[in-house]
Amino acid sequence: MAQDITVMWGSGSPPCWKALIALHEKNLQGYNSVLLSFDKKEHKSQQVLDINPRGQLPAFKHKDRVVNESYGICMYLESEFKSQGNKLVPDCGRAQARMYQRMFEAQTMQQKIMDVVAYTWRVPEDERHDSAVKRNAEALTAELKLWEGYLKTGPGPFLAGKDFSLADVTVYPNIAFLFRFGLCEKRYPNLATYYNSLKDRPSIKATWPPTWLENPQGMDMLKDFESNTPSFSHCVIRNCFCNPLL
Amino acid sequence: MAQDITVMWGSGSPPCWKALIALHEKNLQGYNSVLLSFDKKEHKSQQVLDINPRGQLPAFKHKDRVVNESYGICMYLESEFKSQGNKLVPDCGRAQARMYQRMFEAQTMQQKIMDVVAYTWRVPEDERHDSAVKRNAEALTAELKLWEGYLKTGPGPFLAGKDFSLADVTVYPNIAFLFRFGLCEKRYPNLATYYNSLKDRPSIKATWPPTWLENPQGMDMLKDFESNTPSFSHCVIRNCFCNPLL
Repeated sequence: MAQDITVMWGSGSPPCWKALIALHEKNLQGYNSVLLSFDKKEHKSQQVLDINPRGQLPAFKHKDRVVNESYGICMYLESEFKSQGNKLVPDCGRAQARMYQRMFEAQTMQQKIMDVVAYTWRVPEDERHDSAVKRNAEALTAELKLWEGYLKTGPGPFLAGKDFSLADVTVYPNIAFLFRFGLCEKRYPNLATYYNSLKDRPSIKATWPPTWLENPQGMDMLKDFESNTPSFSHCVIRNCFCNPLL
Repeated sequence: MAQDITVMWGSGSPPCWKALIALHEKNLQGYNSVLLSFDKKEHKSQQVLDINPRGQLPAFKHKDRVVNESYGICMYLESEFKSQGNKLVPDCGRAQARMYQRMFEAQTMQQKIMDVVAYTWRVPEDERHDSAVKRNAEALTAELKLWEGYLKTGPGPFLAGKDFSLADVTVYPNIAFLFRFGLCEKRYPNLATYYNSLKDRPSIKATWPPTWLENPQGMDMLKDFESNTPSFSHCVIRNCFCNPLL
């Protein structure tokens, strides 16, 4: 079955990683994996555009069915391979409610992370403002405080409760991305505990971004990011040029 | 069952409307409906914050289960009330793939709509740039061109095929919002056909934004929005002050 699946992806991209984790959770390791380089702009190549007119990764095909949105891929795989691998949607209605809430809230978290981390990459130089950088940093701080709370008071050990679910598939890459960019584990102890507790889960370990393995150092963009009062050095962010996915 | 459900919502907000359509599709019309005013900042009131710490609408509770994200609400309702009302996830894998792709792509559409329509509402005056307004308009133009194509070549009459699905629940409010803001039906004939074909569907008609019914005129912010070459009057948008949800 897995041979019918092609997924084109880029290393370090949270949406791509979500799709890969879902594939591994559903025991679909034999899929046709096409690793592409954002640096070489391979996400704009014809092989991607043939499947995804947006020229974005992931790009995913199963038989003649195309699903490119990472959440769509996760939901589709869970539905299409319901009885295979790990069940990713809990039966219990209460756990389901928590799962859906967290997985879709994670989109806001991802947006706020990228507003900070990708600011110079997305906003042309003459449109950048320290006020925007400061506002984005404050918004991310407030966001992370929410997630610290969820992880502190939530039922655990997983986001929806006792079982690993689509909430973890979609949230984990965001949290790993934060620590990759230097978020301080001591300042965010609940995020850090969750992050470390799942590092060795087979689906996550097997799909860990290869560029992160090659260069385990990471970046320190978020190292001064406080949990309460952002003392964030936004002038650095405003003027630094980088593609955070590299 | 529906008496166990409370939904707080604001008129004209696409995410709120999505939740309401799903409730009606699942025959849950007896829910406790709390219409709040964005204008009076009631989305920041304690009754909302008690359920949704983000202070955003919709805010939704079923029994003691809280789900505030509109996509989460739709998925939760479909799962929790699977055998009630209309089935919103098709059985066929091919139609499911199409449904998931369109419903999650619709988030990008909504983002691009809001980048244009809510620019002055979201971006402080001294951070506004004509170059950003132009880029946002071009991005929305490209986005709408994609959807014109989907609706032209898709299997129809619904987005995932022969049955109304979660794709329609999540996409329709975006498209209605575009026409409410003056998008020209002649320039986007496939979007217009789809828009008009579903206006009288009971779930949609019953949940049509009350402020739109009170003032059927709409706005003309997008009236010059071209389908190919944007001749969009971005200086108007850059300097106009309005909350597009009012």
